[in-house]
Amino acid sequence: MKNKNIEFFQLFEHESSTYTYLLVDKKTREAVIIDPVIETVERDLQLLSELNAKLKYVLDTHVHADHITAAGKIREKTGAKTVVSRAAQVECVDVPADDKDVLKFGEHSIQILQTPGHTDGCLSFLIDDAVFTGDSLMIRANGRTDFQQGSSETLYHSITEKLFSLPDETLVYPGHDYRGQTVTTIGLEKKYNPRIGGGRTLQEFVKIMSELKLANPKKIHQAVPANLLCGKVKNNLLFQPQNVDGIPEITVQTLHEQFQNANMIDVRRPDEWVGEYGHIEGAKMVTMGPELEAYLATLDKEKEYVFVCRSGARSGNVTHYCLQQGFKHVINMQGGMIAWNQHGFPVTREMK
Amino acid sequence: MKNKNIEFFQLFEHESSTYTYLLVDKKTREAVIIDPVIETVERDLQLLSELNAKLKYVLDTHVHADHITAAGKIREKTGAKTVVSRAAQVECVDVPADDKDVLKFGEHSIQILQTPGHTDGCLSFLIDDAVFTGDSLMIRANGRTDFQQGSSETLYHSITEKLFSLPDETLVYPGHDYRGQTVTTIGLEKKYNPRIGGGRTLQEFVKIMSELKLANPKKIHQAVPANLLCGKVKNNLLFQPQNVDGIPEITVQTLHEQFQNANMIDVRRPDEWVGEYGHIEGAKMVTMGPELEAYLATLDKEKEYVFVCRSGARSGNVTHYCLQQGFKHVINMQGGMIAWNQHGFPVTREMK
Repeated sequence: MKNKNIEFFQLFEHESSTYTYLLVDKKTREAVIIDPVIETVERDLQLLSELNAKLKYVLDTHVHADHITAAGKIREKTGAKTVVSRAAQVECVDVPADDKDVLKFGEHSIQILQTPGHTDGCLSFLIDDAVFTGDSLMIRANGRTDFQQGSSETLYHSITEKLFSLPDETLVYPGHDYRGQTVTTIGLEKKYNPRIGGGRTLQEFVKIMSELKLANPKKIHQAVPANLLCGKVKNNLLFQPQNVDGIPEITVQTLHEQFQNANMIDVRRPDEWVGEYGHIEGAKMVTMGPELEAYLATLDKEKEYVFVCRSGARSGNVTHYCLQQGFKHVINMQGGMIAWNQHGFPVTREMK
Repeated sequence: MKNKNIEFFQLFEHESSTYTYLLVDKKTREAVIIDPVIETVERDLQLLSELNAKLKYVLDTHVHADHITAAGKIREKTGAKTVVSRAAQVECVDVPADDKDVLKFGEHSIQILQTPGHTDGCLSFLIDDAVFTGDSLMIRANGRTDFQQGSSETLYHSITEKLFSLPDETLVYPGHDYRGQTVTTIGLEKKYNPRIGGGRTLQEFVKIMSELKLANPKKIHQAVPANLLCGKVKNNLLFQPQNVDGIPEITVQTLHEQFQNANMIDVRRPDEWVGEYGHIEGAKMVTMGPELEAYLATLDKEKEYVFVCRSGARSGNVTHYCLQQGFKHVINMQGGMIAWNQHGFPVTREMK
């Protein structure tokens, strides 16, 4: 930022390649922080303290899918108010922001620009000569549009109509960069952004976006639910099981959507593990009996476990037993490996 | 940087956590680049081109030990002049810089500050409201002083007398950061730098630095020689052998300093390899005869190889043979494993 009355810090979180921004009004020491990350919250709180800054707002450009926001934690520590788009429907937020809202810190204005497309609730923040664009517009890039209500059409309009109508020399500070770049300008992106610059049409942009085929962010299943709670990680639960006669159960279809992330314990015997129905890749075999009993004693009762057997009978009993032992999030897989096989889901028969 | 007449780009190279800085004078488009890295040179050249910048100088704060400078490559591509401290004794440099020298780009001045301590030839560059400090002063840190003519005493004086005498609000852009921070100020470092801020004495600083016990940078043996050639990687040679009757030779002491990085070929028989004198960890056993002949035919004649045997006689013959075959950097280890053992250097007797 070029404004001499703002002390400006761009901060980077390496694991998710996220930028956090801290802006302090030189005179009043009122400050705002944009897109803080839970992993680096101690660093950022220390800097705030060293700067003798009074944090007024914690702004999130959107509900992030790749990292957990530190908004809730910072609010707790500093008393700052959290700001997220009203469209993001984050219930815990203090200031649900709408397009054209204006917030103040010291003598500076933060103009809220709704720039949806990466998600429904994406905002950009215009502060003096700089715009903080989150995942809407990035350096020679832009946010993906293939999950979380993403829409390439919507993003095209947000970028070309809202952001590109700012003065060319406006500094653009993105939510991420993966190539070691820190800043760009509206003028540079208008010219050189390979997806949407140089006069690309809506059709061209939509085609480019549809052909990206990106892998999901590693933390999406953890980050999105947590960020809808202002960064509060409740318990990393993957499933919302149905209560069937007092036993929490999920279907094989539900497990199949998430089995790579689930803690699965298969309680069958070794001959079944490698037999007709095979087993699910990633499950752990702990045969019912003393072996299982000893193993369960080592587990964290707050964590989520899915029990699997041949038909769902034995694993149902184990689930019931665990509930009695105080486990909070144990689940039985309905129908067992028979149902899993009937749906044609992948199995393996290696002993390991 | 706050100067509105300078377009400013801070760029990061992830592997070595190095910052490169690009500054462009808005009117004339004259530009300078500070500490470019060979790994990211294409990115930086593209940005220069997109900015329609005329690069005048490539400045290196010092002879880096952790990455290879892109100075030579950028000079070749743009015609810019390279700038390094005269004290660094880099022969290929266009502008050997001295303390208080002033360089210009557009209407802006670069004031050269000698800030030795991390190395003899460390410079800082003062440009308007910002100082680029390389490894002299970093964010809540400073460069190590345990190799490359490093001196904690000298660095203490450079930081406290030269850099800390700049105005408190001067922005400090370091050569590296490992915690995702991009900028600090003289005032913040004076107060909060844990090693040298808060009024630390010379004695305290020297003690802290002496207790750091850092590992050497991975690339030091490659980077320093290359950077003394403006980033030209000649051939990664580790040794400067003595010519003994036409055979390039090194002592066991010399090899011992570098044996972890050397290509060592032990030409003895298997029984000797695991016998009385053992062998050097990391060497490859290829017994003299047809096996060795076949193996040599697969090697790159531009690379460096050190031959080892019991007394240095057989390996001397092999070295001679290789020279005849056109190998450029073959070396005989004087005195063989007998000499290595006499010096008490480590051996192993495992067959592998």
